[in-house]
Amino acid sequence: MNDMTSGAAARFDPALRERIEDLLCDYAHALDDGQIDRWPGFFTETCVYHVTTREGHEAGLPIGIMRCVGRGMMLDRVKAFHTANIFEPHSYNHVLGRASMALGPGGDTFACRSNFHVFRIMQDGRTDLFATGRYMDTIVLDGGAAKFEQRIVVLDSRQVDILLVLPL
Amino acid sequence: MNDMTSGAAARFDPALRERIEDLLCDYAHALDDGQIDRWPGFFTETCVYHVTTREGHEAGLPIGIMRCVGRGMMLDRVKAFHTANIFEPHSYNHVLGRASMALGPGGDTFACRSNFHVFRIMQDGRTDLFATGRYMDTIVLDGGAAKFEQRIVVLDSRQVDILLVLPL
Amino acid sequence: MNDMTSGAAARFDPALRERIEDLLCDYAHALDDGQIDRWPGFFTETCVYHVTTREGHEAGLPIGIMRCVGRGMMLDRVKAFHTANIFEPHSYNHVLGRASMALGPGGDTFACRSNFHVFRIMQDGRTDLFATGRYMDTIVLDGGAAKFEQRIVVLDSRQVDILLVLPL
Repeated sequence: MNDMTSGAAARFDPALRERIEDLLCDYAHALDDGQIDRWPGFFTETCVYHVTTREGHEAGLPIGIMRCVGRGMMLDRVKAFHTANIFEPHSYNHVLGRASMALGPGGDTFACRSNFHVFRIMQDGRTDLFATGRYMDTIVLDGGAAKFEQRIVVLDSRQVDILLVLPL
Repeated sequence: MNDMTSGAAARFDPALRERIEDLLCDYAHALDDGQIDRWPGFFTETCVYHVTTREGHEAGLPIGIMRCVGRGMMLDRVKAFHTANIFEPHSYNHVLGRASMALGPGGDTFACRSNFHVFRIMQDGRTDLFATGRYMDTIVLDGGAAKFEQRIVVLDSRQVDILLVLPL
Repeated sequence: MNDMTSGAAARFDPALRERIEDLLCDYAHALDDGQIDRWPGFFTETCVYHVTTREGHEAGLPIGIMRCVGRGMMLDRVKAFHTANIFEPHSYNHVLGRASMALGPGGDTFACRSNFHVFRIMQDGRTDLFATGRYMDTIVLDGGAAKFEQRIVVLDSRQVDILLVLPL
Protein backbone atom coordinates (compact mmCIF):
# COMPACT_ATOMS: atom_id res chain seq x y z
CA MET A 1 0.00 0.00 0.00
CA ASN A 2 2.64 2.43 1.03
CA ASP A 3 6.26 1.68 0.35
CA MET A 4 7.63 5.12 1.14
CA THR A 5 10.32 5.22 3.76
CA SER A 6 12.11 7.86 5.76
CA GLY A 7 15.16 7.07 3.69
CA ALA A 8 13.41 7.96 0.46
CA ALA A 9 12.16 11.18 1.98
CA ALA A 10 15.72 12.12 2.89
CA ARG A 11 16.58 12.47 -0.80
CA PHE A 12 14.21 15.38 -1.06
CA ASP A 13 15.47 18.85 -1.67
CA PRO A 14 13.95 20.98 1.12
CA ALA A 15 12.80 23.67 -1.34
CA LEU A 16 10.97 21.02 -3.36
CA ARG A 17 9.27 19.66 -0.26
CA GLU A 18 8.10 23.20 0.54
CA ARG A 19 6.58 23.62 -2.91
CA ILE A 20 4.78 20.32 -2.68
CA GLU A 21 3.51 21.00 0.84
CA ASP A 22 2.29 24.42 -0.35
CA LEU A 23 0.36 22.77 -3.18
CA LEU A 24 -1.34 20.37 -0.74
CA CYS A 25 -2.15 23.22 1.61
CA ASP A 26 -3.37 25.68 -1.03
CA TYR A 27 -5.63 23.04 -2.54
CA ALA A 28 -7.30 22.43 0.83
CA HIS A 29 -7.66 26.13 1.59
CA ALA A 30 -9.15 26.88 -1.82
CA LEU A 31 -11.86 24.25 -1.37
CA ASP A 32 -12.53 25.30 2.22
CA ASP A 33 -12.94 28.90 1.09
CA GLY A 34 -15.44 27.86 -1.57
CA GLN A 35 -13.10 28.82 -4.42
CA ILE A 36 -14.12 25.89 -6.55
CA ASP A 37 -13.14 27.72 -9.76
CA ARG A 38 -9.52 27.35 -8.67
CA TRP A 39 -9.85 23.58 -8.38
CA PRO A 40 -8.87 22.50 -11.95
CA GLY A 41 -5.83 24.79 -11.84
CA PHE A 42 -4.14 22.57 -9.27
CA PHE A 43 -3.94 19.75 -11.85
CA THR A 44 -2.06 19.12 -15.07
CA GLU A 45 -3.92 19.03 -18.38
CA THR A 46 -3.78 15.22 -18.48
CA CYS A 47 -4.54 14.61 -14.82
CA VAL A 48 -6.55 11.90 -13.14
CA TYR A 49 -8.68 12.76 -10.12
CA HIS A 50 -10.25 9.78 -8.47
CA VAL A 51 -12.23 9.40 -5.25
CA THR A 52 -12.62 5.88 -3.97
CA THR A 53 -12.94 3.86 -0.77
CA ARG A 54 -10.11 2.01 0.92
CA GLU A 55 -11.89 -1.22 0.11
CA GLY A 56 -12.18 -0.34 -3.57
CA HIS A 57 -8.62 0.94 -3.71
CA GLU A 58 -7.14 -2.20 -2.16
CA ALA A 59 -9.17 -4.36 -4.54
CA GLY A 60 -7.82 -2.30 -7.44
CA LEU A 61 -11.31 -1.39 -8.64
CA PRO A 62 -11.21 1.22 -11.40
CA ILE A 63 -14.65 2.59 -10.59
CA GLY A 64 -14.90 4.92 -7.67
CA ILE A 65 -17.17 7.58 -6.32
CA MET A 66 -15.97 10.40 -8.54
CA ARG A 67 -13.54 10.25 -11.43
CA CYS A 68 -12.24 12.94 -13.74
CA VAL A 69 -9.76 12.21 -16.51
CA GLY A 70 -8.25 15.39 -17.91
CA ARG A 71 -8.75 18.96 -16.84
CA GLY A 72 -11.66 19.33 -19.26
CA MET A 73 -13.80 16.98 -17.19
CA MET A 74 -12.94 18.97 -14.11
CA LEU A 75 -14.04 22.20 -15.76
CA ASP A 76 -17.34 20.53 -16.70
CA ARG A 77 -17.78 19.50 -13.12
CA VAL A 78 -17.16 23.05 -11.90
CA LYS A 79 -19.71 24.35 -14.41
CA ALA A 80 -22.25 21.78 -13.19
CA PHE A 81 -21.58 22.90 -9.65
CA HIS A 82 -22.51 26.47 -10.57
CA THR A 83 -25.52 25.71 -12.72
CA ALA A 84 -27.09 22.33 -12.31
CA ASN A 85 -26.70 21.05 -8.80
CA ILE A 86 -29.31 21.52 -6.15
CA PHE A 87 -27.96 21.09 -2.66
CA GLU A 88 -27.90 22.58 0.78
CA PRO A 89 -25.06 25.10 1.03
CA HIS A 90 -22.12 23.89 3.06
CA SER A 91 -18.41 24.22 3.41
CA TYR A 92 -15.51 21.97 4.33
CA ASN A 93 -12.66 22.29 6.74
CA HIS A 94 -9.63 20.15 5.87
CA VAL A 95 -6.75 19.43 8.21
CA LEU A 96 -3.96 17.34 6.70
CA GLY A 97 -1.09 15.62 8.38
CA ARG A 98 2.47 15.92 7.12
CA ALA A 99 3.02 14.25 3.75
CA SER A 100 5.43 11.38 3.20
CA MET A 101 7.24 11.79 -0.11
CA ALA A 102 9.23 9.60 -2.45
CA LEU A 103 10.65 9.99 -5.92
CA GLY A 104 8.50 8.36 -8.56
CA PRO A 105 9.87 6.19 -11.38
CA GLY A 106 12.06 8.24 -13.72
CA GLY A 107 12.86 10.69 -10.96
CA ASP A 108 10.74 13.52 -12.35
CA THR A 109 7.51 12.76 -10.50
CA PHE A 110 6.90 12.76 -6.76
CA ALA A 111 4.72 10.26 -4.93
CA CYS A 112 3.13 11.83 -1.86
CA ARG A 113 0.78 10.51 0.74
CA SER A 114 -1.01 12.55 3.37
CA ASN A 115 -3.85 11.82 5.77
CA PHE A 116 -6.83 14.14 6.08
CA HIS A 117 -9.75 14.82 8.39
CA VAL A 118 -12.54 16.84 6.79
CA PHE A 119 -15.48 18.34 8.64
CA ARG A 120 -18.55 19.63 6.82
CA ILE A 121 -20.35 22.72 8.04
CA MET A 122 -23.95 23.24 6.93
CA GLN A 123 -25.45 26.69 6.57
CA ASP A 124 -27.29 26.43 9.88
CA GLY A 125 -24.01 25.67 11.62
CA ARG A 126 -24.32 21.92 12.04
CA THR A 127 -20.83 20.43 11.84
CA ASP A 128 -20.11 16.78 11.18
CA LEU A 129 -17.11 14.68 10.42
CA PHE A 130 -17.45 14.29 6.67
CA ALA A 131 -14.53 12.11 5.71
CA THR A 132 -11.24 10.70 6.88
CA GLY A 133 -8.78 9.18 4.47
CA ARG A 134 -5.60 9.76 2.57
CA TYR A 135 -4.43 11.50 -0.53
CA MET A 136 -2.21 9.36 -2.76
CA ASP A 137 -0.69 11.87 -5.17
CA THR A 138 1.59 11.95 -8.15
CA ILE A 139 2.96 15.45 -8.45
CA VAL A 140 4.97 17.01 -11.25
CA LEU A 141 6.59 20.34 -11.92
CA ASP A 142 4.59 21.83 -14.76
CA GLY A 143 6.31 24.96 -16.10
CA GLY A 144 7.80 25.60 -12.67
CA ALA A 145 4.58 25.07 -10.71
CA ALA A 146 3.87 21.94 -8.68
CA LYS A 147 0.68 20.27 -9.95
CA PHE A 148 -1.21 17.05 -9.49
CA GLU A 149 -0.73 14.58 -12.31
CA GLN A 150 -2.82 12.16 -10.31
CA ARG A 151 -4.74 12.58 -7.07
CA ILE A 152 -6.38 9.49 -5.61
CA VAL A 153 -8.57 10.24 -2.62
CA VAL A 154 -8.89 7.05 -0.59
CA LEU A 155 -11.73 7.30 1.93
CA ASP A 156 -11.40 5.13 5.01
CA SER A 157 -15.09 4.36 5.30
CA ARG A 158 -17.34 2.51 2.94
CA GLN A 159 -20.22 4.65 4.17
CA VAL A 160 -19.92 7.60 1.88
CA ASP A 161 -22.36 10.44 1.94
CA ILE A 162 -24.10 10.74 -1.41
CA LEU A 163 -23.70 14.47 -1.16
CA LEU A 164 -20.24 14.77 -2.65
CA VAL A 165 -20.97 18.07 -4.33
CA LEU A 166 -17.67 19.72 -3.64
CA PRO A 167 -14.58 17.68 -4.46
CA LEU A 168 -12.41 16.57 -1.57
CA MET B 1 -10.84 35.88 1.34
CA ASN B 2 -7.49 34.34 0.79
CA ASP B 3 -5.21 35.64 -1.89
CA MET B 4 -2.08 33.84 -0.82
CA THR B 5 -0.46 31.71 -3.45
CA SER B 6 2.25 29.13 -3.60
CA GLY B 7 4.29 31.72 -5.42
CA ALA B 8 4.12 34.15 -2.53
CA ALA B 9 5.07 31.40 -0.11
CA ALA B 10 8.16 30.65 -2.18
CA ARG B 11 9.63 34.01 -1.19
CA PHE B 12 9.84 32.85 2.39
CA ASP B 13 13.14 32.27 4.04
CA PRO B 14 12.95 28.72 5.44
CA ALA B 15 14.27 29.82 8.85
CA LEU B 16 11.53 32.44 9.06
CA ARG B 17 8.87 29.89 8.19
CA GLU B 18 10.18 27.68 10.99
CA ARG B 19 9.92 30.50 13.52
CA ILE B 20 6.38 31.30 12.47
CA GLU B 21 5.31 27.65 12.50
CA ASP B 22 6.85 27.31 15.96
CA LEU B 23 4.80 30.28 17.17
CA LEU B 24 1.58 28.73 15.86
CA CYS B 25 2.48 25.40 17.42
CA ASP B 26 3.62 26.75 20.80
CA TYR B 27 0.47 28.84 21.10
CA ALA B 28 -1.73 25.76 20.61
CA HIS B 29 0.32 23.61 23.00
CA ALA B 30 0.28 26.29 25.70
CA LEU B 31 -3.51 26.50 25.61
CA ASP B 32 -3.93 22.74 25.46
CA ASP B 33 -1.68 22.37 28.50
CA GLY B 34 -3.75 24.89 30.43
CA GLN B 35 -0.93 27.43 30.53
CA ILE B 36 -3.24 30.35 30.05
CA ASP B 37 -0.80 32.73 31.75
CA ARG B 38 1.46 32.34 28.73
CA TRP B 39 -1.30 33.47 26.38
CA PRO B 40 -0.70 37.26 26.28
CA GLY B 41 3.03 36.70 25.74
CA PHE B 42 2.39 35.39 22.23
CA PHE B 43 1.12 38.83 21.19
CA THR B 44 2.63 42.26 20.68
CA GLU B 45 1.74 45.10 23.05
CA THR B 46 -0.63 46.64 20.50
CA CYS B 47 -2.20 43.41 19.29
CA VAL B 48 -5.74 42.65 18.25
CA TYR B 49 -7.24 39.28 19.14
CA HIS B 50 -10.64 38.69 17.63
CA VAL B 51 -12.88 35.62 17.53
CA THR B 52 -15.70 35.72 15.01
CA THR B 53 -17.76 33.49 12.76
CA ARG B 54 -17.19 33.01 9.05
CA GLU B 55 -20.48 34.73 8.41
CA GLY B 56 -19.50 37.74 10.51
CA HIS B 57 -16.02 37.85 9.03
CA GLU B 58 -17.26 37.79 5.44
CA ALA B 59 -19.77 40.53 6.22
CA GLY B 60 -16.95 42.59 7.73
CA LEU B 61 -18.72 42.90 11.07
CA PRO B 62 -16.47 44.47 13.70
CA ILE B 63 -18.25 42.79 16.60
CA GLY B 64 -17.37 39.19 17.25
CA ILE B 65 -17.52 36.66 20.03
CA MET B 66 -14.43 37.78 21.87
CA ARG B 67 -12.25 40.79 21.19
CA CYS B 68 -9.14 42.06 22.92
CA VAL B 69 -7.34 45.20 21.81
CA GLY B 70 -3.90 45.47 23.38
CA ARG B 71 -2.10 43.09 25.66
CA GLY B 72 -3.61 44.80 28.71
CA MET B 73 -7.06 43.52 27.82
CA MET B 74 -5.64 40.04 27.45
CA LEU B 75 -4.06 40.20 30.90
CA ASP B 76 -7.43 41.27 32.34
CA ARG B 77 -9.02 38.32 30.67
CA VAL B 78 -6.45 35.94 32.14
CA LYS B 79 -7.07 37.43 35.58
CA ALA B 80 -10.81 36.95 35.15
CA PHE B 81 -10.18 33.38 34.17
CA HIS B 82 -8.36 32.74 37.44
CA THR B 83 -10.74 34.63 39.73
CA ALA B 84 -14.17 35.32 38.42
CA ASN B 85 -15.32 32.63 36.08
CA ILE B 86 -17.38 29.68 37.17
CA PHE B 87 -17.25 26.84 34.71
CA GLU B 88 -16.80 23.12 34.42
CA PRO B 89 -13.10 22.31 34.09
CA HIS B 90 -12.08 21.28 30.61
CA SER B 91 -9.17 21.30 28.23
CA TYR B 92 -8.66 21.67 24.49
CA ASN B 93 -6.75 19.70 21.94
CA HIS B 94 -5.76 21.69 18.84
CA VAL B 95 -4.50 20.18 15.62
CA LEU B 96 -3.56 22.71 12.94
CA GLY B 97 -2.85 22.17 9.29
CA ARG B 98 0.18 23.69 7.60
CA ALA B 99 0.05 27.47 7.34
CA SER B 100 0.02 29.35 4.07
CA MET B 101 2.18 32.47 4.33
CA ALA B 102 2.61 35.70 2.43
CA LEU B 103 4.48 38.92 2.99
CA GLY B 104 2.27 41.69 4.29
CA PRO B 105 2.32 45.26 2.99
CA GLY B 106 5.68 46.88 3.71
CA GLY B 107 7.42 43.54 3.78
CA ASP B 108 7.94 43.49 7.54
CA THR B 109 4.76 41.67 8.52
CA PHE B 110 3.67 38.17 7.58
CA ALA B 111 0.13 37.14 6.73
CA CYS B 112 -0.53 33.54 7.71
CA ARG B 113 -3.55 31.36 7.48
CA SER B 114 -3.97 27.95 9.05
CA ASN B 115 -6.94 25.66 9.58
CA PHE B 116 -7.68 24.14 12.96
CA HIS B 117 -9.76 21.38 14.52
CA VAL B 118 -10.23 21.73 18.28
CA PHE B 119 -11.73 19.10 20.55
CA ARG B 120 -12.84 19.89 24.08
CA ILE B 121 -12.35 17.37 26.86
CA MET B 122 -14.49 17.74 29.99
CA GLN B 123 -13.27 16.57 33.37
CA ASP B 124 -15.34 13.41 33.23
CA GLY B 125 -13.70 12.52 29.93
CA ARG B 126 -16.47 13.51 27.54
CA THR B 127 -14.82 14.69 24.32
CA ASP B 128 -16.59 16.76 21.67
CA LEU B 129 -15.62 18.63 18.58
CA PHE B 130 -15.52 22.18 19.91
CA ALA B 131 -14.61 24.25 16.89
CA THR B 132 -13.32 24.12 13.35
CA GLY B 133 -12.10 27.23 11.59
CA ARG B 134 -9.06 29.14 10.54
CA TYR B 135 -6.54 31.49 12.03
CA MET B 136 -5.93 34.62 9.97
CA ASP B 137 -2.76 36.07 11.46
CA THR B 138 -0.54 39.07 11.07
CA ILE B 139 2.82 38.20 12.57
CA VAL B 140 5.79 40.44 13.25
CA LEU B 141 9.29 40.00 14.59
CA ASP B 142 9.25 41.78 17.93
CA GLY B 143 12.78 42.03 19.33
CA GLY B 144 13.74 38.84 17.53
CA ALA B 145 10.70 36.84 18.61
CA ALA B 146 7.78 36.08 16.29
CA LYS B 147 4.56 37.47 17.78
CA PHE B 148 0.98 38.03 16.76
CA GLU B 149 0.17 41.62 15.84
CA GLN B 150 -3.29 40.42 14.93
CA ARG B 151 -4.97 37.04 15.30
CA ILE B 152 -8.44 36.66 13.84
CA VAL B 153 -10.07 33.36 14.71
CA VAL B 154 -12.72 32.64 12.09
CA LEU B 155 -15.07 29.89 13.24
CA ASP B 156 -16.78 27.92 10.49
CA SER B 157 -20.04 27.47 12.33
CA ARG B 158 -22.53 30.05 13.48
CA GLN B 159 -23.45 27.74 16.34
CA VAL B 160 -20.92 28.77 18.91
CA ASP B 161 -20.86 27.34 22.37
CA ILE B 162 -21.38 30.08 24.93
CA LEU B 163 -18.69 28.47 27.01
CA LEU B 164 -15.69 30.18 25.43
CA VAL B 165 -13.80 30.40 28.70
CA LEU B 166 -10.39 29.57 27.33
CA PRO B 167 -9.32 31.48 24.23
CA LEU B 168 -8.93 29.52 21.03
CA MET C 1 4.44 19.79 31.66
CA ASN C 2 5.95 21.32 28.60
CA ASP C 3 8.96 23.55 28.91
CA MET C 4 9.88 23.63 25.25
CA THR C 5 10.12 27.06 23.72
CA SER C 6 10.45 28.53 20.29
CA GLY C 7 13.98 29.45 21.27
CA ALA C 8 14.95 25.86 21.92
CA ALA C 9 13.44 24.80 18.64
CA ALA C 10 15.56 27.36 16.83
CA ARG C 11 18.69 25.38 17.70
CA PHE C 12 17.50 22.55 15.51
CA ASP C 13 19.28 21.67 12.34
CA PRO C 14 16.57 21.69 9.63
CA ALA C 15 17.68 18.32 8.25
CA LEU C 16 17.36 16.80 11.71
CA ARG C 17 13.87 18.24 12.11
CA GLU C 18 12.93 16.65 8.77
CA ARG C 19 14.14 13.23 9.89
CA ILE C 20 12.24 13.45 13.15
CA GLU C 21 9.06 14.67 11.45
CA ASP C 22 9.39 11.81 8.96
CA LEU C 23 9.63 9.32 11.82
CA LEU C 24 6.47 10.71 13.42
CA CYS C 25 4.68 10.65 10.09
CA ASP C 26 5.83 7.18 8.99
CA TYR C 27 4.83 5.72 12.34
CA ALA C 28 1.29 7.05 11.96
CA HIS C 29 0.99 5.94 8.34
CA ALA C 30 2.26 2.44 9.14
CA LEU C 31 -0.38 1.96 11.83
CA ASP C 32 -3.13 3.48 9.70
CA ASP C 33 -2.22 1.12 6.86
CA GLY C 34 -2.43 -1.89 9.18
CA GLN C 35 1.32 -2.57 8.95
CA ILE C 36 1.59 -3.53 12.58
CA ASP C 37 4.66 -5.69 11.91
CA ARG C 38 6.58 -2.48 11.24
CA TRP C 39 5.67 -1.09 14.65
CA PRO C 40 8.61 -2.37 16.77
CA GLY C 41 11.08 -1.18 14.13
CA PHE C 42 10.33 2.45 14.96
CA PHE C 43 11.83 1.96 18.43
CA THR C 44 15.28 1.31 19.87
CA GLU C 45 16.08 -2.05 21.47
CA THR C 46 15.76 -0.59 24.98
CA CYS C 47 12.71 1.54 24.32
CA VAL C 48 9.77 2.35 26.55
CA TYR C 49 6.30 2.61 25.02
CA HIS C 50 3.65 3.78 27.43
CA VAL C 51 0.02 4.75 26.94
CA THR C 52 -1.58 6.65 29.78
CA THR C 53 -4.17 9.31 30.52
CA ARG C 54 -3.45 12.96 31.14
CA GLU C 55 -4.64 12.50 34.69
CA GLY C 56 -2.29 9.56 35.27
CA HIS C 57 0.59 11.32 33.56
CA GLU C 58 0.24 14.49 35.62
CA ALA C 59 0.05 12.42 38.81
CA GLY C 60 3.23 10.61 37.75
CA LEU C 61 1.57 7.21 37.93
CA PRO C 62 3.81 4.49 36.50
CA ILE C 63 0.90 2.25 35.54
CA GLY C 64 -0.89 3.10 32.37
CA ILE C 65 -3.14 1.51 29.80
CA MET C 66 -0.44 -0.22 27.82
CA ARG C 67 3.26 -0.47 28.60
CA CYS C 68 6.10 -2.15 26.74
CA VAL C 69 9.67 -2.08 28.00
CA GLY C 70 12.12 -3.20 25.34
CA ARG C 71 11.49 -4.16 21.76
CA GLY C 72 11.01 -7.80 22.78
CA MET C 73 7.76 -6.95 24.55
CA MET C 74 6.60 -5.11 21.47
CA LEU C 75 7.28 -8.13 19.29
CA ASP C 76 5.25 -10.28 21.69
CA ARG C 77 2.43 -7.83 21.42
CA VAL C 78 2.52 -7.97 17.62
CA LYS C 79 2.48 -11.75 17.78
CA ALA C 80 -0.54 -11.67 20.09
CA PHE C 81 -2.24 -9.31 17.67
CA HIS C 82 -1.86 -11.86 14.88
CA THR C 83 -2.76 -14.97 16.84
CA ALA C 84 -4.62 -14.46 20.07
CA ASN C 85 -6.81 -11.42 19.91
CA ILE C 86 -10.44 -11.58 18.95
CA PHE C 87 -11.81 -8.25 17.88
CA GLU C 88 -13.87 -6.51 15.26
CA PRO C 89 -11.62 -5.45 12.39
CA HIS C 90 -10.94 -1.74 12.28
CA SER C 91 -8.39 0.81 11.23
CA TYR C 92 -7.15 4.16 12.48
CA ASN C 93 -6.61 7.49 10.84
CA HIS C 94 -4.07 9.71 12.61
CA VAL C 95 -3.58 13.39 11.95
CA LEU C 96 -0.80 15.00 13.95
CA GLY C 97 -0.01 18.65 14.43
CA ARG C 98 3.51 20.01 14.03
CA ALA C 99 5.93 18.81 16.69
CA SER C 100 7.69 21.10 19.11
CA MET C 101 11.27 19.98 19.63
CA ALA C 102 14.03 20.55 22.15
CA LEU C 103 17.42 19.06 22.82
CA GLY C 104 17.38 16.55 25.62
CA PRO C 105 19.99 16.39 28.39
CA GLY C 106 23.42 15.53 26.98
CA GLY C 107 22.49 16.94 23.61
CA ASP C 108 22.20 13.57 21.88
CA THR C 109 18.50 12.97 22.45
CA PHE C 110 15.56 15.01 21.21
CA ALA C 111 12.43 15.73 23.19
CA CYS C 112 9.42 16.11 20.92
CA ARG C 113 5.80 16.76 21.58
CA SER C 114 2.99 16.56 19.06
CA ASN C 115 -0.79 16.55 19.32
CA PHE C 116 -2.90 13.92 17.61
CA HIS C 117 -6.49 13.28 16.61
CA VAL C 118 -7.23 9.64 15.81
CA PHE C 119 -10.44 8.37 14.25
CA ARG C 120 -11.33 4.68 14.23
CA ILE C 121 -13.08 3.13 11.24
CA MET C 122 -14.93 -0.15 11.78
CA GLN C 123 -15.36 -2.65 8.97
CA ASP C 124 -18.95 -1.59 8.33
CA GLY C 125 -17.76 1.98 7.87
CA ARG C 126 -18.76 3.45 11.22
CA THR C 127 -16.24 6.17 12.06
CA ASP C 128 -15.74 7.59 15.54
CA LEU C 129 -13.29 9.84 17.24
CA PHE C 130 -11.11 7.30 19.02
CA ALA C 131 -8.59 9.41 20.88
CA THR C 132 -7.13 12.86 21.20
CA GLY C 133 -3.90 13.47 23.05
CA ARG C 134 -0.22 14.10 22.67
CA TYR C 135 2.91 12.16 22.00
CA MET C 136 5.77 12.96 24.40
CA ASP C 137 8.79 11.43 22.71
CA THR C 138 12.47 10.93 23.33
CA ILE C 139 14.12 10.32 20.00
CA VAL C 140 17.66 9.21 19.26
CA LEU C 141 19.72 8.59 16.16
CA ASP C 142 20.31 4.85 16.14
CA GLY C 143 22.85 3.90 13.47
CA GLY C 144 21.76 6.88 11.39
CA ALA C 145 18.02 6.27 11.71
CA ALA C 146 15.76 8.32 13.99
CA LYS C 147 14.06 6.02 16.50
CA PHE C 148 11.94 6.31 19.60
CA GLU C 149 13.85 5.70 22.81
CA GLN C 150 10.67 6.54 24.66
CA ARG C 151 7.15 7.26 23.43
CA ILE C 152 4.59 8.30 26.01
CA VAL C 153 1.08 8.56 24.60
CA VAL C 154 -0.90 10.88 26.84
CA LEU C 155 -4.62 10.58 26.18
CA ASP C 156 -6.71 13.62 27.01
CA SER C 157 -9.73 11.70 28.22
CA ARG C 158 -10.06 9.37 31.15
CA GLN C 159 -12.72 7.49 29.21
CA VAL C 160 -10.60 5.07 27.28
CA ASP C 161 -12.08 2.44 25.07
CA ILE C 162 -11.12 -1.02 26.29
CA LEU C 163 -10.53 -1.99 22.70
CA LEU C 164 -6.94 -0.80 22.40
CA VAL C 165 -5.94 -3.63 20.09
CA LEU C 166 -3.74 -1.65 17.79
CA PRO C 167 -1.19 0.62 19.44
CA LEU C 168 -1.64 4.34 19.06
